[in-house]
Amino acid sequence: MAEVRNKQVVLRDYVVGFPKESDMNTVEGRITLKVPEGSNDVLLKNLYLSCDPYMRVLMSKISHEGFGSYTPGSPLTGYGVSKVLESGHPDYKKDDLVWGITKWEEFSLVPATQIHFKIEHTDVPLSYYTGILGMPGMTAYAGFFELGSPKKGENVFVSAASGAVGQLVGQFAKLTGCYVVGSAGSKEKVDLLKNKFGFDGAFNYKEESDLNATMKRYFPEGIDIYFENVGGKTLDAVLLNMRLHGRIPVCGMISQYNLTQPEGVTNLANLIFKQIRMEGFTVGKFYHLYSKFLEFVLPHIREGKVLYVEDIAEGLENGPAALVGLYTGRNVGKQVVVVARE
Amino acid sequence: MAEVRNKQVVLRDYVVGFPKESDMNTVEGRITLKVPEGSNDVLLKNLYLSCDPYMRVLMSKISHEGFGSYTPGSPLTGYGVSKVLESGHPDYKKDDLVWGITKWEEFSLVPATQIHFKIEHTDVPLSYYTGILGMPGMTAYAGFFELGSPKKGENVFVSAASGAVGQLVGQFAKLTGCYVVGSAGSKEKVDLLKNKFGFDGAFNYKEESDLNATMKRYFPEGIDIYFENVGGKTLDAVLLNMRLHGRIPVCGMISQYNLTQPEGVTNLANLIFKQIRMEGFTVGKFYHLYSKFLEFVLPHIREGKVLYVEDIAEGLENGPAALVGLYTGRNVGKQVVVVARE
Repeated sequence: MAEVRNKQVVLRDYVVGFPKESDMNTVEGRITLKVPEGSNDVLLKNLYLSCDPYMRVLMSKISHEGFGSYTPGSPLTGYGVSKVLESGHPDYKKDDLVWGITKWEEFSLVPATQIHFKIEHTDVPLSYYTGILGMPGMTAYAGFFELGSPKKGENVFVSAASGAVGQLVGQFAKLTGCYVVGSAGSKEKVDLLKNKFGFDGAFNYKEESDLNATMKRYFPEGIDIYFENVGGKTLDAVLLNMRLHGRIPVCGMISQYNLTQPEGVTNLANLIFKQIRMEGFTVGKFYHLYSKFLEFVLPHIREGKVLYVEDIAEGLENGPAALVGLYTGRNVGKQVVVVARE
Repeated sequence: MAEVRNKQVVLRDYVVGFPKESDMNTVEGRITLKVPEGSNDVLLKNLYLSCDPYMRVLMSKISHEGFGSYTPGSPLTGYGVSKVLESGHPDYKKDDLVWGITKWEEFSLVPATQIHFKIEHTDVPLSYYTGILGMPGMTAYAGFFELGSPKKGENVFVSAASGAVGQLVGQFAKLTGCYVVGSAGSKEKVDLLKNKFGFDGAFNYKEESDLNATMKRYFPEGIDIYFENVGGKTLDAVLLNMRLHGRIPVCGMISQYNLTQPEGVTNLANLIFKQIRMEGFTVGKFYHLYSKFLEFVLPHIREGKVLYVEDIAEGLENGPAALVGLYTGRNVGKQVVVVARE
């Protein structure tokens, strides 16, 4: 079988500081659209690729246990929705739609273990499996319900609240009967939080000069759950305003990933004073809850009770700009890159 | 009934920065040794008073939810071992020995709710009920076993390791089959850790110029449990060296209590990378485990398998110096003040 073109986005070199479009190259590779004889791998046509904040961590040379680093000269890896072209593995067959870890390229040959789930429900947008029905959705669900242990009437604060995860945490909090306030980085995003996602309050953190005062304004009685996506100054202000027995699921610290010297958090003694549980997590250990999660969220999506905003970049060649835009907050909602629609 | 002298240690004014002896006064009050008619209170003769790091927090004007502030002009309050002189409450009677929250004075009239437990075992030193058999012992037990969830073979690091809590955490870790290293602030304390308490390693943090390198030296494979007593730079170095799914019970941050501007902790993103649970606690919610704890620890004490080092100050008038000494690390082991021996 003949080789075909396989456009790829590769990392040029390890990144220091904020990533730039020029840290990545779009190159033309070649691939034979055939699973090698005797291989259990699966050949995928990539449809939607997911831009996720954690990817910045993999662009650094320092690798963290449980995370890795990207390899300069090789395509980025990340979550995506793909169509099976050919399968060497009995669990998958031609034309299955799947989501999991794939590469930033048109076609990928991946080990079957990288595929997370076969997609069974296609009455919702396929791109949702990079977001609300994929890793970010599962992250919001597990972080909020499993680690946050929310109770009706509790006060919830979400940072990066219009992002892929944050917009869901806020809506899940409202469904639970919580009071929820979110922070974001533009008027447009703040309006989304209040008018579309039903947050009780929202503010643009860039316009707040004293975040401690901001927290006191929105949470005069304190915060029970802080869903942490940003770290740094926001976390420091939150720590001063947590209630007794508060919970802080730590999902991300996007404000810190690009700093060569992270900001210092000074108010950690409040963990003791308020007996706070702060727990870093990645979604990996929660995937056994995925079918339970789908049962919960699919009806809400179909009834329009949970909404999801995506920011769609068309074409793999626009992937680097889309990815880089996450770290300056250019995206509004979940950032997706369309490689192909079917 | 006639009044008698009641020597007291009172706070002069709210404290900023490191506390000094002169922040407290020893004054002569008067007390009638009688429970008022119709009162349910209990009249105590105080025997041993406990010097505990958290007391610094109560010396500040800022009060924290769940903590309070001391009242300038009034005696300090704190844990102590006392003898009941007279009781207006049916649970206590004359000559009972009790431990709980009392005042820094010779005699105290306290609500019965402030008494934590009646002392049933007197074949061990009575002063132990301010330490290994009191709040610090229960703190070490609950923090290490309930929040730390230790498993045999895991790597444990304890800061302030020769202190009232730390020396027990280390010994409990050894009983569990863990590898345990402690930090302390003098050669004498480090020798205690290694030679008396059986730590696998110990170092004087004042002699380490690069705590990250120190951690790597003692924990080439990383730390599973960090029992946090100090905060600041030590915590920051630990965060870089935690293992996947590590636990950090946060018992205290003594290095931070006296700072008007606490040190910044910069490595919190490791909470995510390593999926670490960091949990602040105070012992209050664990006292339902006290009888279970006694069953565990009393036989070990009697058999000499768990040791306890106390630093005894004689006389209430030496209380202020003893208390202040905690924050410069003057004490070796649990700091106790003897008011009377019976």
